[in-house]
Amino acid sequence: MNPLADRFPVGMLRDFTRRVFVQCGVPEEESSSAAEILLSADLRGIDSHGIARLRRYHELLTAGSIEPRPDIRIASRTRTTATVDGGNGLGLVVGPWANRLAIEMAADTGAGWVAVRRSNHYGIAGAYSLRALRYGMIGWSMTNAGNLVVPFLGAERMLGTNPISIAFPGGKEPPVVIDMSTAAVPYGKIQMARRNGTSIPLGWAVDHRGEPTTDPAAMADGGALLPLGSDGAGQGHKGYCLGAMVDVFCGVLPGAGWGPFAPHFAMVGAALTAGRGSGTGHFFGALRIDAFMDPAEFRSRVDDWVRTMRGTRPAPGTNGPLIPGDPERLAEAERRERGIPLLASVVEDLHHLARETGVAFG
Amino acid sequence: MNPLADRFPVGMLRDFTRRVFVQCGVPEEESSSAAEILLSADLRGIDSHGIARLRRYHELLTAGSIEPRPDIRIASRTRTTATVDGGNGLGLVVGPWANRLAIEMAADTGAGWVAVRRSNHYGIAGAYSLRALRYGMIGWSMTNAGNLVVPFLGAERMLGTNPISIAFPGGKEPPVVIDMSTAAVPYGKIQMARRNGTSIPLGWAVDHRGEPTTDPAAMADGGALLPLGSDGAGQGHKGYCLGAMVDVFCGVLPGAGWGPFAPHFAMVGAALTAGRGSGTGHFFGALRIDAFMDPAEFRSRVDDWVRTMRGTRPAPGTNGPLIPGDPERLAEAERRERGIPLLASVVEDLHHLARETGVAFG
Repeated sequence: MNPLADRFPVGMLRDFTRRVFVQCGVPEEESSSAAEILLSADLRGIDSHGIARLRRYHELLTAGSIEPRPDIRIASRTRTTATVDGGNGLGLVVGPWANRLAIEMAADTGAGWVAVRRSNHYGIAGAYSLRALRYGMIGWSMTNAGNLVVPFLGAERMLGTNPISIAFPGGKEPPVVIDMSTAAVPYGKIQMARRNGTSIPLGWAVDHRGEPTTDPAAMADGGALLPLGSDGAGQGHKGYCLGAMVDVFCGVLPGAGWGPFAPHFAMVGAALTAGRGSGTGHFFGALRIDAFMDPAEFRSRVDDWVRTMRGTRPAPGTNGPLIPGDPERLAEAERRERGIPLLASVVEDLHHLARETGVAFG
Repeated sequence: MNPLADRFPVGMLRDFTRRVFVQCGVPEEESSSAAEILLSADLRGIDSHGIARLRRYHELLTAGSIEPRPDIRIASRTRTTATVDGGNGLGLVVGPWANRLAIEMAADTGAGWVAVRRSNHYGIAGAYSLRALRYGMIGWSMTNAGNLVVPFLGAERMLGTNPISIAFPGGKEPPVVIDMSTAAVPYGKIQMARRNGTSIPLGWAVDHRGEPTTDPAAMADGGALLPLGSDGAGQGHKGYCLGAMVDVFCGVLPGAGWGPFAPHFAMVGAALTAGRGSGTGHFFGALRIDAFMDPAEFRSRVDDWVRTMRGTRPAPGTNGPLIPGDPERLAEAERRERGIPLLASVVEDLHHLARETGVAFG
């Protein structure tokens, strides 16, 4: 645990978040669901995407940059696909709405796919694929995001970190939950290296000229992250392909901002009116298992897969392979028990919010 | 062009392939489609997956290890999803059958998803996503394959190179076509380094103990490939997640072999009766554009995306970013014009096949 961090019960933080959203004019039920999505980031150890952002969400809502009661509507649909216009609502409100639609369509037809425009930052991708698991379905969730990443052989920020999450239900074993960005590393790792005064490996970032760099400040000051699989030499095209795929599904297909026109978390209002398309874009999918095979047999096959992968002979000096989703699941178990660790600066933000909104903190 | 390679017209090679399949008892129409899929690998510059494998396909067919006239059937289905039993046919026959079903379901409902078991090696993943483009759809294709890759932190071959291909139609610009394995590099790059007596970069492979290696022979002799994004240090989990995702969709979900039980190209007959599940597995998807937005608008948005990415300021010493699919498209244009270069050993195999089958070569 970080010595600068205190721990807080997740229930308290979730309730505080819910009441802050309500205080901003977000309806009761949506506030509750938004708080649950936001806190699932903190629970799963992805601190950058959780309650640390609540103060900024509050600012955007009170400034009118995000609609607290958006007019979310289906712009077009078939029985198995839809495009949703998020009405410039919170991603934490629009995301669950669209994801539920995908799950309902899957319940009806076997599969559901929903592309979303005019949304905003939606928390962690995994929060949505996990919801499909509650219905025994395979869940799929992707979002684009503000530009931070160079295309392979590029020298400019043109794509977001564009995450992909896919979750498969398990039986006696835990589910297999993939939740990963398509950049080499998260921006947070660059910031941490900069704070600690350490260098970064080649393959993480380029400087403002597009030259590979080991200096975190050179990335932060006008440089960019590299795509997944970059090594500073001839690789990086596959991460670029994956980031492009997410951008076309989430940005181009629903009519959202794409590439360098996808809004940044911190600049929502401005970006919504500039460039191509509207707002942040997401893409959700749900697949019913029994549309492919007997669900009990599938679960037992997943269990077998999980045990087989865990049984892999370990690489020297390691405990061997984990299953996708293990690190987040272990973090969640520990944090449910011991509380969510928050940095002093985040706690200060929450106290500030409490004063602003009159919602008691702690 | 490789000095050891001669060039041959694609039409001649395709016709030779078709007639060899017919001679093995594969029906006329299926032979034609199988030859087209197989040669698309050669056309697109992925020589390892093309006509170089024809002799081995012939051996497997004549030995009875692969059914020339498989009983392909739908094991279960909804209007938008299906599981197909490939009846141990050629992947080049089962793949197009199942992919067509996905496209037909998409034409009917907006989206179609087909998981396949009891198939065999199906050529390049991109051959199938490209077919969806003919119908103006987004195409999706994945397959599992014989184990060559360690899970992150593992010391054993547990997953195939498990490729993903996704194709989006363009308008005036070419389509965006992703076709990539989830391993750090193809096995062919290890073989080439070994032949040339050069070392390989850290992050490509481990030796038989699971230690990172720069010696291609150490990988080939009981070692393994590393997953995409590996750097020999703390990375590689994302490539493992992607490889796992492909394995669950293609292996676990339809009831095919998965992980270390997925058959190798060269050991089809044996592997079909051993381990978990049956045969090689694939997963195909098709999405109708007008199920999400006006197709003309989508095409113009893709064109804009393509031009914007091409307009990225280039990294120093490079010509700047390509669009996913550019290298294969350029190879295809050149090879349609100048012919397919074949290594002397491949030409020898084809002459051998001509003698075996009585089908004239050249």
